Amino acid sequence: MQPLKALHVPARTIMTPGPVEVDPRVLQAMSRSILGQFDPAFTAIMNDTMEGLRRVLQTQNQWAYPIDGTSRAGIEAMLCSIIEPGDRVLIPSFGRFGGLLAEITERCGGEVHMIHTEWGTVFAPDTIIAAIKETEPKVVAMVHGDTSTGRIQPLQEIGYACREHDCLFIVDAVATVGGTDVKTDDWMIDGLITGTQKCLSVPSGMAPLTYNHRIEEILMERKSIEQGLVTGEQEELNHQRRIRSNYFDLSQLQEYWSPARLNHHTEATAALYGLYEGLRLILEEGLEQRFERHRTNERALVAGIEAMGLTLFGDPGCKLPTVTCVEIPEGINGETVRAMLLEDFAIEVASSFGPLHGKIWRIGTMGYSCQKKNVLQTLAALEAVLLRLQVKIPAGEAVQAALDVYKQVEYEKVSH
Amino acid sequence: MQPLKALHVPARTIMTPGPVEVDPRVLQAMSRSILGQFDPAFTAIMNDTMEGLRRVLQTQNQWAYPIDGTSRAGIEAMLCSIIEPGDRVLIPSFGRFGGLLAEITERCGGEVHMIHTEWGTVFAPDTIIAAIKETEPKVVAMVHGDTSTGRIQPLQEIGYACREHDCLFIVDAVATVGGTDVKTDDWMIDGLITGTQKCLSVPSGMAPLTYNHRIEEILMERKSIEQGLVTGEQEELNHQRRIRSNYFDLSQLQEYWSPARLNHHTEATAALYGLYEGLRLILEEGLEQRFERHRTNERALVAGIEAMGLTLFGDPGCKLPTVTCVEIPEGINGETVRAMLLEDFAIEVASSFGPLHGKIWRIGTMGYSCQKKNVLQTLAALEAVLLRLQVKIPAGEAVQAALDVYKQVEYEKVSH
Repeated sequence: MQPLKALHVPARTIMTPGPVEVDPRVLQAMSRSILGQFDPAFTAIMNDTMEGLRRVLQTQNQWAYPIDGTSRAGIEAMLCSIIEPGDRVLIPSFGRFGGLLAEITERCGGEVHMIHTEWGTVFAPDTIIAAIKETEPKVVAMVHGDTSTGRIQPLQEIGYACREHDCLFIVDAVATVGGTDVKTDDWMIDGLITGTQKCLSVPSGMAPLTYNHRIEEILMERKSIEQGLVTGEQEELNHQRRIRSNYFDLSQLQEYWSPARLNHHTEATAALYGLYEGLRLILEEGLEQRFERHRTNERALVAGIEAMGLTLFGDPGCKLPTVTCVEIPEGINGETVRAMLLEDFAIEVASSFGPLHGKIWRIGTMGYSCQKKNVLQTLAALEAVLLRLQVKIPAGEAVQAALDVYKQVEYEKVSH
Repeated sequence: MQPLKALHVPARTIMTPGPVEVDPRVLQAMSRSILGQFDPAFTAIMNDTMEGLRRVLQTQNQWAYPIDGTSRAGIEAMLCSIIEPGDRVLIPSFGRFGGLLAEITERCGGEVHMIHTEWGTVFAPDTIIAAIKETEPKVVAMVHGDTSTGRIQPLQEIGYACREHDCLFIVDAVATVGGTDVKTDDWMIDGLITGTQKCLSVPSGMAPLTYNHRIEEILMERKSIEQGLVTGEQEELNHQRRIRSNYFDLSQLQEYWSPARLNHHTEATAALYGLYEGLRLILEEGLEQRFERHRTNERALVAGIEAMGLTLFGDPGCKLPTVTCVEIPEGINGETVRAMLLEDFAIEVASSFGPLHGKIWRIGTMGYSCQKKNVLQTLAALEAVLLRLQVKIPAGEAVQAALDVYKQVEYEKVSH
């Protein structure tokens, strides 16, 4: 039998909406040696990670910890822990990931009420508030930034409305946390989920989430203890309202992340090291400085794309700063362009889903990938590929336009 | 606001039933740079990982891939994908992790029929076969090696019986794969789950599993496609039998791991690199050689424990070769000993659960932790701690007894 080949990981410039490049400090952290899950040195890292998450998620919530799984594991954990069969859930959807919220809610037995807006736009808050009044849901679940359309939904008014109408406000902030402002507490978000592989710039595999006492109350009502761990007085606590998943049962998970250290699972050691180092990097950079870096690189990218004569997709008033959607020029196969970018330039940009499949490219500017050199190289490569395919675009303009932006930003800083 | 502290990971000798130490090659692999999930260089690693898993799991099954989550994520994925509300599931339990199977089955809506045997023993196959005849279950789910009691259940006859009575045989082999023989196909196991952080010796965070066409048939019957990915002819495929979890839906996951590359989640990049390198190491060592290494170190450890005058817990006829359970001497607080081992010697051994809590220590000899130096250091340290606590044990005997075993094994090899 042939031995398995050596691991082959070519270097890439990753300009997609995730997974994105990772700071070498994070990669180095992930190669640290193993600690037992109840080793005080490890539980200290768990506690410090919770503190880092609270700061990055801008919350005073006690509970802020990662689910060991990819982003949608966090979404499912949140939804299945609070939604019981028959619960009404309002899902205002403006892209693919609204559909995912609906899909997960349905599988939890929730009664889904969806409202839609055209892909490329987001909702006026009043539309959502009217739907809340009409459906009187237990939960409003929605996406903050939907990478499928490159749009961002303002949340503040919706958060207030949810509190006013006594429903829970759950937000999928996978595409935004760490790249643009997400104010969990100020916006009255009850439960928020994010992922590691986008603007947190940590490898995929963890889904940090946070929730407040309103959600904790539901968890405590639904709590049950695992067989084989039950001793003495703790008897049959299982009941009808029990959370349908063991792995995603937040009532158990919060005990694992509390001083009680309930033995639920074995925390993903290396992934936690990586998350912790990623959070450290974010806090060292500073949230506002980090958001500004994301805005600057987005501005440069957009200037370059426009200088090439390409068209941006969607309503510019609600553009997600971490993803730029570009219409594929007529007569061009978007996949041919992506393949040339990857094979010749080792640069990856993304295609899209559903109704936008084959119609737009999506270029991410997230986390460690969100760098001047990456933006400039991507513009230069995209221009070269399009010229090679005989698309009529002006040569040499894109990178110059982007450089102008960087110069302008420097000037603004100095003259400030 | 204080910055987060630098990541602090002290070196440890980890002699628990997991998580265990990891070969530096695995840690190095995990620090490689990110690849996009549909990058051909990454999908090649996915395919090669499947091939490596087939070999290590001793199966010809097409489907062998990891769930992105810890071991119990794999167990839940397997159970929730095949168990529908009301399905009868027979669970013969001989320790804590049988209880976990029951707990997850119940949450899936399955009708649990449990049989128990005293902790420290396993089942005679006839007992299980009689229970199969009596309950006529759809599924028999059981643990192969239960770390809570340090016992291993022979599976071959049960596998045959399950096939004969047309029920599915699901095995939790988290504690055994990579450390002792697990013959998925020969033992007629329909679905098998393992974890990374034990004998595969890869950090926690992935749960490799495999299943055959009997299970795939059920998955295909229950399959549905996610909203937002549905296009054109694919219409409302959701139905009553739909799997209750999106994240753990094996029908979707196998499409992600197939050439179709259904966009389900973003594969945990670094974790997959680690798993792949771990599998490579196992296959380079050779399965039989690896099992022999585990047997030798276990033998040395047991000899040392016995030379110290300590008592092993449980029926020696079904001892799990990768975990050694030691009764805590009377009058001694097991946690004091564990704390001294960790603080003074940087060695970690485990306590136990439920009825055995405070009664036994569990010493693992798994994967990269299963080394001569670790066994000798652990024996020396345990002896020193017990002497320090004035337990009456012979001084100096334990390590000598273990060294004798290693010498004897060398001699057997040479004279073979």
